[in-house]
Parts: sequence; structure tokens; C-alpha cells
Amino acid sequence: MLIEHQNKRPNIDPTAYVAPTAVICGDVTIGPRTHVSFGAVIEAHGAPVRIGAQCVVRENLNIRSTSRNAVRIGDHVLIGPLSSLKGCIVEDECFLATGVKIYQGAVIRRRTEVRIDGVVHVRSVLPPNSLVPIKWVAVGDPAQMFPPDKHEEIDAILSKMNFPEEVYGLERQTGSGVDMDMKEVTRRVTSGLADHRDDREP
Amino acid sequence: MLIEHQNKRPNIDPTAYVAPTAVICGDVTIGPRTHVSFGAVIEAHGAPVRIGAQCVVRENLNIRSTSRNAVRIGDHVLIGPLSSLKGCIVEDECFLATGVKIYQGAVIRRRTEVRIDGVVHVRSVLPPNSLVPIKWVAVGDPAQMFPPDKHEEIDAILSKMNFPEEVYGLERQTGSGVDMDMKEVTRRVTSGLADHRDDREP
Amino acid sequence: MLIEHQNKRPNIDPTAYVAPTAVICGDVTIGPRTHVSFGAVIEAHGAPVRIGAQCVVRENLNIRSTSRNAVRIGDHVLIGPLSSLKGCIVEDECFLATGVKIYQGAVIRRRTEVRIDGVVHVRSVLPPNSLVPIKWVAVGDPAQMFPPDKHEEIDAILSKMNFPEEVYGLERQTGSGVDMDMKEVTRRVTSGLADHRDDREP
Repeated sequence: MLIEHQNKRPNIDPTAYVAPTAVICGDVTIGPRTHVSFGAVIEAHGAPVRIGAQCVVRENLNIRSTSRNAVRIGDHVLIGPLSSLKGCIVEDECFLATGVKIYQGAVIRRRTEVRIDGVVHVRSVLPPNSLVPIKWVAVGDPAQMFPPDKHEEIDAILSKMNFPEEVYGLERQTGSGVDMDMKEVTRRVTSGLADHRDDREP
Repeated sequence: MLIEHQNKRPNIDPTAYVAPTAVICGDVTIGPRTHVSFGAVIEAHGAPVRIGAQCVVRENLNIRSTSRNAVRIGDHVLIGPLSSLKGCIVEDECFLATGVKIYQGAVIRRRTEVRIDGVVHVRSVLPPNSLVPIKWVAVGDPAQMFPPDKHEEIDAILSKMNFPEEVYGLERQTGSGVDMDMKEVTRRVTSGLADHRDDREP
Repeated sequence: MLIEHQNKRPNIDPTAYVAPTAVICGDVTIGPRTHVSFGAVIEAHGAPVRIGAQCVVRENLNIRSTSRNAVRIGDHVLIGPLSSLKGCIVEDECFLATGVKIYQGAVIRRRTEVRIDGVVHVRSVLPPNSLVPIKWVAVGDPAQMFPPDKHEEIDAILSKMNFPEEVYGLERQTGSGVDMDMKEVTRRVTSGLADHRDDREP
């Protein structure tokens, strides 16, 4: 399903394939010979999404830009099913396995492998030929990598990356629990997305 | 796609937005200004699902009630893509990140943050302002939190929460491997869901 | 949505249920009383997919065969939402929880439980009555199990299982980063999947 959003139509190379139940919404470019599988959701909301040549975009994943962060994916990149990529840059010949999560402002240089359920957190930068192990978290610039049990080490770096500012344009709050004003976060997100009401199939 | 199931129709506030490929099935209420993204599947099977005001419900996630456990989500809650919420209570202003999994009978009090791939297990209760770290598991009432390597600690508490009883109404079996009678589990689930044959678009 | 692919039509038992937004593509057999939920994507590409009787196949998951590896799922198996099963064998009465990932050539013997986000890696074999803890990784034949922090132990066994050869028919490369020729991987996958252009609804 191709959707015109914010007066922008998807631009699909004629040699690319998009499965009938995939959603391509807004200012999204899909390059030559790239394959987009069933149930994939690729959305440009504000900034554009650019996916290069001969990429493999698998089932039920989600790729989306935001008003602040474009998505740019190079050539010969494989992105596994059930992954989530938001507002990030992924260079040529990367291998992103099943269930990978990549956040706003992250940069993944060429020929990097992110293994199953690996996370690359907000504003984190992976140099070329990096490897994120299964279920590890890459965070920082340059990124350091940690298994999930290293919560305190992850959090110490993450707090410097300022997730609320990068993702929602909000100041980080101190105190326990959620470190954002959720009334304001949800107000900004829902009102920002309200123009989906004007979507149409071209 | 709105679906009438068990003679109940979804009740969507006129100021809410539901993406065209999202599925809302049965006795589901969606509150004012709430945004439901592409590919989200929200189902009431038996008990109702209630989602409050100004929530953000992201792509390709799954929220569902069961015959035993309603879903009740408060106001100003953000639920990330590829999450799974079953028969649980989530109070106001919670932030549930990408890939979060929450199970039957769980209660998450207000302003709690569950980070990427965090798990809140069956019948577990998180007090207000809790934080579940990336890929950690919260289990127990009150919940304790563990990274994945603490399997024995998790399992000791989990066995007291009695997953088979809460989720399938069955006694927990002892011995190695699956601790349930899978012939009976699958018989109950498939016959319980058989009334989906009578679904229709209102 | 049933799809004819490679001149093969899905074969759905009349007592099975397939949700209207689920995708069943190609040489896929669904056995008696099996329930397939919304958003599930089940695809046979090359080798067939066989799912037995009274199975529960939940929301937004992905099951697919490849040209080299069939999928064979026994009877009374429950597969949780947001899971990914590729070219593997799962015997009777297994319980696969939410977010489970199982890879090409894996064999899971009867009455095995794979808990939330558990991984069974390529060519790995689990004996009957096995238990993979939450977010652990099973790898090897016979499989050993590790939490995510044991990356080096996992990788030492994984390198012997030869992922590139099993999954893409390619030699494993040495050096840092991706251990495959990504230009060749993406060329093989995209050209192999090109015959989806000829898909049609029967």
C-alpha cells in the first residue's frame, strides 16, 4: 500500500519489489532491485527516508523518519524481520539481523553487523566493520558495547546522549521513573502525527 | 480495519486516529486524540480493552485481552512498536519502549518506564515511577528486576506466579521442558478463538 | 490473504482459521483446527511449510522456508506473537513464547519450551523437553545455552555452525564486521525473491 502523506508520494524504483501488504508512506525512496517483504511499514514523517539499491527489507519491520531525523540506508543492506529503525543512518553493506532496534541520530558505518535483537541507541556512532553481539547494546560516540546486565554502565553513557532532547525535543527530567513530561511528549507526538488524517492512496 | 467480534464493535473516539492497516477487533475503546499506527493489532477477546486519551500506539504491536484478563491503559501512555501487551493494566503517563512484553495480570503503576525489550511478567506489579532497564525482566509482587543471566532467580519467583493457571487456567506440571499439558492448552485456545469465524466488518 | 506463489497455492484445512490480515503465501499447509492470528506472515519460498493440527500461530509473527530449508511444525504447538521462524523443525507440543527467533536448520524436539525472546541459532538441535530461558541463546548440536553476556562462548560455537553457508550458501569470510560478501548475499536474496512479481490471489 503506497500512501501520499504531507503531499509527498513514495518513489519506488521500477525494478524494486514491494509486497502488497507492506506500507510505504510519504517521502520514501526505494532504490533499484530492493525487496520489501510483507507487513513492512516504512514511513517518512517530516524528514525523508532513502533506501538504496539491492537492499533486503524483511517482514513486519518498521522504518521511520521523524521531523528531526531522516533515515538514510545505503546499498546492499539486509534488514531482518521485526526490526525497528528510527531516524538513523546505515551505510552500505551492513547486516542487521532479526529484531534489531536502532534509534534517532545513530550512525552505522559500512560493513557493520548488528546481530539478533542488538540495539544501537540514540546518537550512537559505530565505526566501519563493527559487530554488535546478540542482544547487546551499543551506546555512545564512539559507541561502546554492553550486554544487558551492564545497566549502570549503559545508563551512565545514555544520560549524556540525552534521549528526550534528541527524540522529542524536550529537556530530560531528573527523579525516578520516566524522565520526560509524558503529557507533553504525547501531546507533541499525537498532534505532530495528526496530518495522517489527510493521507490518501495516490 | 474495524472488526465486530462477539457482537461487540470497537468504540473509537472521533478525535482518535487509527491507521488503515491497523486492526481493532471487538470490545475495544480508544480514547480522545490517541494515535494508532500502521499494523497495530488490538483485540478484545472476552474481557474488554480500554485505551485512554492522548496515547501513542505504535507500529506492528499487539495488545489483547483474554477471557480472564482485561486490558486497561491510562492517559498519556506511549507504547513502542513491536510490543506485546496481554491482559494487563498500565496507568497514566507510562513510557513503554520498543519491543516491550507485558503479561496477564501485570499492573504497571503511573509514570513507569519500561525500556527496550523489557519484560513485565505474569501477575507482576510495578509501583509508580519504576524503571525496567533495557532487556531486563520484572517479576513478582512487588516486582523484582533481573537481567537475563539471572535465570534461576527469575524462575524461582516465576514459578510462584503460576503462569499456566493465570494464562490458561491450567495447573502447572512438574518435570522438564514445557510445564503445561500442551494438548489441553492448544485445545482451549483454538476452541476459545473459534468464534472469530463470526467476525464481520461493521 | 492467500497468495499463489511459484505456482503453489496454500492448502488450508477447512477447520483451520486464518485471520483476514494474515498472509499465507505459496506451498504452505495449515492443519486441522489450527488458528492463525492477525498480521501473521507465513511464506514458502522454495521448500514447503507444513504446520500441523491444533496449533496456535499468533499476531505479527513471521514463519518462512527458504530454497534450502523447509519448515515443519508438529501438532499442538503454540507460537507467540512477534516471533520469527526460518527453515526449521519444531516437533509436537512445543511452547514458543513471544518474540522467539529460530534459524535455518534448527531442530526443536517435542515438548520443548523456548521462553520470551529466546533464540535457537542456525543448525542447533534441542533434545526433547528442553527449556531455553528468557532471552537466552541456544547454539550447537547438541545445543548449549547461554545468556547474552556470554558472547565469546556463543560466537565460538556459532562460527562452527557456519551461518553464511547454511543460510546463504556462501563461504564465511574472516576479518572484522560482517563475515559475508554483502553484495553477493543481497544479490542472491533479491534475485531469488524476484518471482514474487508473479504472485496472485487464487
